[in-house]
Amino acid sequence: MVDTMKALVKHAPEKGARLEQVPVPKPGYGEVLVKVTAAAICGTDIHIYNWDPWAAGRIKPPLVFGHEFCGEVAALGEGVDDLAVGTRVSAEGHFVCGRCYFCRTGQAHICQDVEIIGVDTDGCFAEYVRVPRSNIWELDSEIPTEVAAIHDPFGNAVHTALADTIVGKTVLITGCGPIGLAAAAIAKKAGAVKVFASDVNDYRLELAKKMGADKVYKAGRDDMVADVLRETDGLGADVLLEMAGAASAINDGFRALRKGGWAALLGLPSKPVEVDLADGIIFKGAKVYGINGRKMYETWYQMQALLRAGLDLTPMITHRFKFEEFEEAFALAASGNSGKIILYP
Amino acid sequence: MVDTMKALVKHAPEKGARLEQVPVPKPGYGEVLVKVTAAAICGTDIHIYNWDPWAAGRIKPPLVFGHEFCGEVAALGEGVDDLAVGTRVSAEGHFVCGRCYFCRTGQAHICQDVEIIGVDTDGCFAEYVRVPRSNIWELDSEIPTEVAAIHDPFGNAVHTALADTIVGKTVLITGCGPIGLAAAAIAKKAGAVKVFASDVNDYRLELAKKMGADKVYKAGRDDMVADVLRETDGLGADVLLEMAGAASAINDGFRALRKGGWAALLGLPSKPVEVDLADGIIFKGAKVYGINGRKMYETWYQMQALLRAGLDLTPMITHRFKFEEFEEAFALAASGNSGKIILYP
Amino acid sequence: MVDTMKALVKHAPEKGARLEQVPVPKPGYGEVLVKVTAAAICGTDIHIYNWDPWAAGRIKPPLVFGHEFCGEVAALGEGVDDLAVGTRVSAEGHFVCGRCYFCRTGQAHICQDVEIIGVDTDGCFAEYVRVPRSNIWELDSEIPTEVAAIHDPFGNAVHTALADTIVGKTVLITGCGPIGLAAAAIAKKAGAVKVFASDVNDYRLELAKKMGADKVYKAGRDDMVADVLRETDGLGADVLLEMAGAASAINDGFRALRKGGWAALLGLPSKPVEVDLADGIIFKGAKVYGINGRKMYETWYQMQALLRAGLDLTPMITHRFKFEEFEEAFALAASGNSGKIILYP
Amino acid sequence: MVDTMKALVKHAPEKGARLEQVPVPKPGYGEVLVKVTAAAICGTDIHIYNWDPWAAGRIKPPLVFGHEFCGEVAALGEGVDDLAVGTRVSAEGHFVCGRCYFCRTGQAHICQDVEIIGVDTDGCFAEYVRVPRSNIWELDSEIPTEVAAIHDPFGNAVHTALADTIVGKTVLITGCGPIGLAAAAIAKKAGAVKVFASDVNDYRLELAKKMGADKVYKAGRDDMVADVLRETDGLGADVLLEMAGAASAINDGFRALRKGGWAALLGLPSKPVEVDLADGIIFKGAKVYGINGRKMYETWYQMQALLRAGLDLTPMITHRFKFEEFEEAFALAASGNSGKIILYP
Repeated sequence: MVDTMKALVKHAPEKGARLEQVPVPKPGYGEVLVKVTAAAICGTDIHIYNWDPWAAGRIKPPLVFGHEFCGEVAALGEGVDDLAVGTRVSAEGHFVCGRCYFCRTGQAHICQDVEIIGVDTDGCFAEYVRVPRSNIWELDSEIPTEVAAIHDPFGNAVHTALADTIVGKTVLITGCGPIGLAAAAIAKKAGAVKVFASDVNDYRLELAKKMGADKVYKAGRDDMVADVLRETDGLGADVLLEMAGAASAINDGFRALRKGGWAALLGLPSKPVEVDLADGIIFKGAKVYGINGRKMYETWYQMQALLRAGLDLTPMITHRFKFEEFEEAFALAASGNSGKIILYP
Repeated sequence: MVDTMKALVKHAPEKGARLEQVPVPKPGYGEVLVKVTAAAICGTDIHIYNWDPWAAGRIKPPLVFGHEFCGEVAALGEGVDDLAVGTRVSAEGHFVCGRCYFCRTGQAHICQDVEIIGVDTDGCFAEYVRVPRSNIWELDSEIPTEVAAIHDPFGNAVHTALADTIVGKTVLITGCGPIGLAAAAIAKKAGAVKVFASDVNDYRLELAKKMGADKVYKAGRDDMVADVLRETDGLGADVLLEMAGAASAINDGFRALRKGGWAALLGLPSKPVEVDLADGIIFKGAKVYGINGRKMYETWYQMQALLRAGLDLTPMITHRFKFEEFEEAFALAASGNSGKIILYP
Repeated sequence: MVDTMKALVKHAPEKGARLEQVPVPKPGYGEVLVKVTAAAICGTDIHIYNWDPWAAGRIKPPLVFGHEFCGEVAALGEGVDDLAVGTRVSAEGHFVCGRCYFCRTGQAHICQDVEIIGVDTDGCFAEYVRVPRSNIWELDSEIPTEVAAIHDPFGNAVHTALADTIVGKTVLITGCGPIGLAAAAIAKKAGAVKVFASDVNDYRLELAKKMGADKVYKAGRDDMVADVLRETDGLGADVLLEMAGAASAINDGFRALRKGGWAALLGLPSKPVEVDLADGIIFKGAKVYGINGRKMYETWYQMQALLRAGLDLTPMITHRFKFEEFEEAFALAASGNSGKIILYP
Repeated sequence: MVDTMKALVKHAPEKGARLEQVPVPKPGYGEVLVKVTAAAICGTDIHIYNWDPWAAGRIKPPLVFGHEFCGEVAALGEGVDDLAVGTRVSAEGHFVCGRCYFCRTGQAHICQDVEIIGVDTDGCFAEYVRVPRSNIWELDSEIPTEVAAIHDPFGNAVHTALADTIVGKTVLITGCGPIGLAAAAIAKKAGAVKVFASDVNDYRLELAKKMGADKVYKAGRDDMVADVLRETDGLGADVLLEMAGAASAINDGFRALRKGGWAALLGLPSKPVEVDLADGIIFKGAKVYGINGRKMYETWYQMQALLRAGLDLTPMITHRFKFEEFEEAFALAASGNSGKIILYP
């Protein structure tokens, strides 16, 4: 095993990052070292790269960032006896305490004392990454590497789209970033009758169609609410999957939601949002789910099952770069004119 | 049967009301005429009485208002063959179409084409009131008249408090109007561990204690959020029952809610509210239910069952007036220094 | 309108039936007369035809039997003002009281006082049939006539297969009569990973494959339990849909069910069955749903939605006869070597 | 710390047990040593004591048996850093693998690779017992020692009684052993309208009344089914909690269950049982839950909450013995004329 590796490092409290040579981490008790074969860029990584206020308040440089990846088991820490070196894996990036009320009641995804890889601890934009054995997810051999690398956002999409019943429902997805794109495919696979999707970006609306959306709306141009009502006998969509976090998307989403329908909110508004609770939720008798992370590990088993059932996520993976090309990759990611971007070590 | 009766009439688009002599309604096909023995004043009635913007936009005078009541069956319309004259009854005040998607799927409480008694059609502040036979609720003989008269808000409270699991939960009720008060008693009956309640009004906080609240907070004075966290090992209340409709109550409620907890929103904000969706709902993985009306008729069977199980609502009924004293009654109701106010014909 | 019509009549308490000329029924208050365009034979009809002990105890000849059909509205009874003559319809065959606890709580499918068309009252093996307006189901124009004619068993299959979550699950269907066949297609449409199916009849196993079953087992020949365990990492199927009603199918089904899985029982055993409750249900922590009829009318909206989503039931419709050929049709139905058999007036 | 301790040992494959001096266990990595302050006798212990066929097939003597207890933390194994010596605790007796599908999806109570204390590994009829740290349950200081000692069956009762909604329901409990007795009190605390209970033993029926049962039936003497129907407007009990495992109790229970009701089965039949699935479950549209163990650790938090809410289990604890009096204790336990029996070291 080599001693050093290349890694994309948030080097200082400022915009940008550096590709540096850093020590290979050593797996501790109950931990595993994974050789990264592919990683992917998340919106969170763009926040870190651009050093926005959220990043400035949370990240402590120097930090290897990145949290979406797949790889091969390279070494086992003490106490790990049920995993073979060489196994192809992805990993849950929330490292949880295992002791709090939430961990002890099947709700580890909202653990009181979570650490997030690539945010609170060194991440996967590196040749090697260290994760607890319990966070390791073993992959079916049929799963393509690039799909394996995006299990984290895929899991967000599964958690959101399957928060309640989808079969036989009309579904509106507001926001066609990667999670919204995956949700479109998942909703169709789960028996949705019709999937409507909206975004501000034409590129992403095209991708949404490729992922299964039946009808797309450009926010700010199309009258989505009126059209969704028209398409649903005036009732509205049965389900709202909110992935944008923008006030207009949230309110239009609730306007287009059927009475008695359900909504799952994953998109994170950057500040409090003015919401028409009376007409949007209360009079409607709507049910609303806040979604955070992935259920550990029910969501992962659902991902495995959906892929076995033939779910195809490849159309949403649009670009590939080497670690060395990170500046180009991040510029593209920030433009919005991409689906998922893969980084190769 | 007499031909005319006294009734409290919203006579014109202006503040106030008049006690007038009006024709006794005739029950049509499938309808029942009920002789009112007691009615109760709701917040909606105060809006109508005061002729606020909501009332001005919705009510078409002249109208007999009032929708909370009990009485005795006085006459049967054609086609009604399963109810005896003299039967002691209350009634669901949402008259529904029976034909829409919602009515046909057990969700009549959000019917597409509802008429509300005392709002869209003549109500119960009168000696007689006409209702569809299917809206009639037959009362157990043990139920006191005044409890019978408040089944409408009692049902709102049941619908809200039993929207999800209560047993073994800590419960925060924001807003101690009659529905919040009833919810406190229901939550305790259903096995809540501890009930916290807040309001702006001391009189109502005292009533909340009588109805079973373990701890009360005066909004604007007490630091409810901090104290609820302290009382719940820092986790927050398992359940939020929002009955106030005020922005501060809603946001404090979500702040005091446990991660993974559930909230039911019944209080109606008069305009869009700025809500911290990210911290209040999304990161928390909370579940939120919009509550409208009473489930027809599951909620009514639950009311019956809770009363049979010994639920006592009498402490929240604080004042009685004759129809003739309506001005005094409405002045008191508007002051907030009352629980439920009963009007006798 | 003609006065008489041909109808297949259970003429006397004995085996067989007669094609007779009988009076066309007159729709009463709130009822509709439907001109039958296609009907289908159900297992219940075979019991009636063969006059088995169940039929002898329940049916009172003379009776026009048959309960699966589609047609066109031919005449409206008094009080029906929201349906046009000529509308293409199917109908729910459970005529319910609308007044009992079950009807008033969204559970009309288990009404205390139900009448079943073609069993308790004249049915659809006739040129015209009379049904309450509220039982009428209006059909999308794209739905083929023969699919429209089998909405009753299709609804049983939807009610069973969607009793709990299907997406991402492995599903075992024991019994490939028409309801089991439809359930296979529904489960796949709803995102099942893999569908296993068993039957005693090779013809039906072939049909099951056409309807989407991934693997089929011949009862009495194949070791279904062992193979399902093998196919599911030793865990068992996530879901059991029991459509056979035979003791061996039920017990093998529970043996092949995963711990923590769910089962829906629709197949009706003709007598009490010896069940290994300890190992089959209790130790497993399994959830079991008894299924009766179709939810009124949630199941019907689900049928509509699944068809709109592209569900194809046509492969399970295998034979067509004229009313006049009923003897041949019933002989074929009794042989088991058919899918759904359509009768044309 | 002493080196040896007294312990009740299943010494050989034969009836009886011996009080012996054995080595005090040493806590390994992640384990805790607990000084037992009180233990309780379970039906399983009677099977082991009497060496019935189940015990002969499962137990490998010599074994310290017993699995219901409370005590104080006496020593900590390596890696345990979040628990103080002297802490008052009870413990979950299912030691789970933490790695299987069930453990990873919040269903550890049905772990693929469980070990049960006092059955598969040395138990608590001893001065000291060793348990994994993760199985330790810290007790509120207000909980009496004897209630602390019966948390295991209390948890079974909570898991069963709260498997679905109880508030506002009529509840039938078949079998008044300790778990049935606890279930009666839990059901009342959770807002049940009326609790019916049956048993073969008069002593236990008396206890059931003390625990809150409103009406009791002696199996074999009283016509329970008829009376429960009479008490419930002919509908049947909303909920069945089956704790007996006897064929007659199971079938009478389903006969007395309301259509659309739910049943939880915890009582373990010793062999397959003839069940009327058609009338008992399928036509009824009933929902049935198999119950195994306690949810880890949701059930434990529910126990804590119910005790905090004032649930009183003390009436069901009827006898106390010293370890030295074990023969007398087991004779009494086998007679059925007791509630819970406590053993003191």
